[in-house]
Amino acid sequence: MRQAMFVLRIRPDRRGLSEISEAVRGWVAKQGISAGMLTLFCRHTSASLLIQENAARAVRSDLEKFFDELAPEGGHYEHDDEGPDDMPAHLKTALTQVQLSVPVMDGKLMLGTWQGIYLFEHRTHPSQREIVLHLVGE
Amino acid sequence: MRQAMFVLRIRPDRRGLSEISEAVRGWVAKQGISAGMLTLFCRHTSASLLIQENAARAVRSDLEKFFDELAPEGGHYEHDDEGPDDMPAHLKTALTQVQLSVPVMDGKLMLGTWQGIYLFEHRTHPSQREIVLHLVGE
Amino acid sequence: MRQAMFVLRIRPDRRGLSEISEAVRGWVAKQGISAGMLTLFCRHTSASLLIQENAARAVRSDLEKFFDELAPEGGHYEHDDEGPDDMPAHLKTALTQVQLSVPVMDGKLMLGTWQGIYLFEHRTHPSQREIVLHLVGE
Repeated sequence: MRQAMFVLRIRPDRRGLSEISEAVRGWVAKQGISAGMLTLFCRHTSASLLIQENAARAVRSDLEKFFDELAPEGGHYEHDDEGPDDMPAHLKTALTQVQLSVPVMDGKLMLGTWQGIYLFEHRTHPSQREIVLHLVGE
Repeated sequence: MRQAMFVLRIRPDRRGLSEISEAVRGWVAKQGISAGMLTLFCRHTSASLLIQENAARAVRSDLEKFFDELAPEGGHYEHDDEGPDDMPAHLKTALTQVQLSVPVMDGKLMLGTWQGIYLFEHRTHPSQREIVLHLVGE
Repeated sequence: MRQAMFVLRIRPDRRGLSEISEAVRGWVAKQGISAGMLTLFCRHTSASLLIQENAARAVRSDLEKFFDELAPEGGHYEHDDEGPDDMPAHLKTALTQVQLSVPVMDGKLMLGTWQGIYLFEHRTHPSQREIVLHLVGE
């Protein structure tokens, strides 16, 4: 058993879901570990990770709209230091997750046919995001 | 340290929470690993995993009702390719999780007294679901 | 590769978010494992784990308020064996998570600058809570 670690840096060009499956797959393929567990960890409190449907674009826009309505800008928040999207970003992060693990077999992520890995950016003007990738296996 | 992997196949007979603790425990007990970490990964975007109370049946029906109301059929969704339960299924999956890890000690899952592991099926007419089980330890 | 495990016992003095980062860091620092993966597992169905902003106190009160409104006491719940905060506690646990993993590098948790680890207590009169800490690495 051995492990490998890498910090993936991504700058989303907009709020919402950005697929990162290919960047993750590319790194995993180079580690020489055929069976094991990949963990992704998002080092932020206003962006999160989500595994969701990678086919129909409408699923992602419906998802974004749902979370925008569940944690709306203009809610009565005490905290708004960084603008109206600040507190909704923290709420959406809390409702999804900052860490995800995906099993690896034959050097490939065992995602289902329709599953893609997404960075869920919650700020209107995103900055660079860091996602730690950790792979353990043999 | 070594690892073991298995794909658990389940066909829920209805929408909602189906306990899978016993099937998971049975597999873990046969791996000859007494201390380590079990990870479950659900390979779908319209079914998820949840650890919840395993005693009172009413907790589960209240949970199902809560998520039905939070992500209702009949919402104004752009995506409805597979019927009115399609997009609510994706939303409920996003609000819960597709991956869970549970520590193992003395060959047993370290679940709390009242915790059970559930497959949370979100489609009205479920098909077979695949849950990857991965155990690492010694 | 080797592993270590510990049960952290905490008795929150109130409902809401209690930071446990320091207790977790203290245990990790003593394990002699410089690179690896830490997993936290909360053995309850009415308390959960959350990684959130550790600076502005208002973020945490807004978070608590948001979840109180999303899963309110006084909802029409079938289950209320342990009082009006019983079912809301299960719902908030389902909306957040009972398990979190955080990568470790140079003996330190790779949390982002603004991330803290919180126990999210959902009962009005909390009792002692058990959080399993598991570290694997080298």
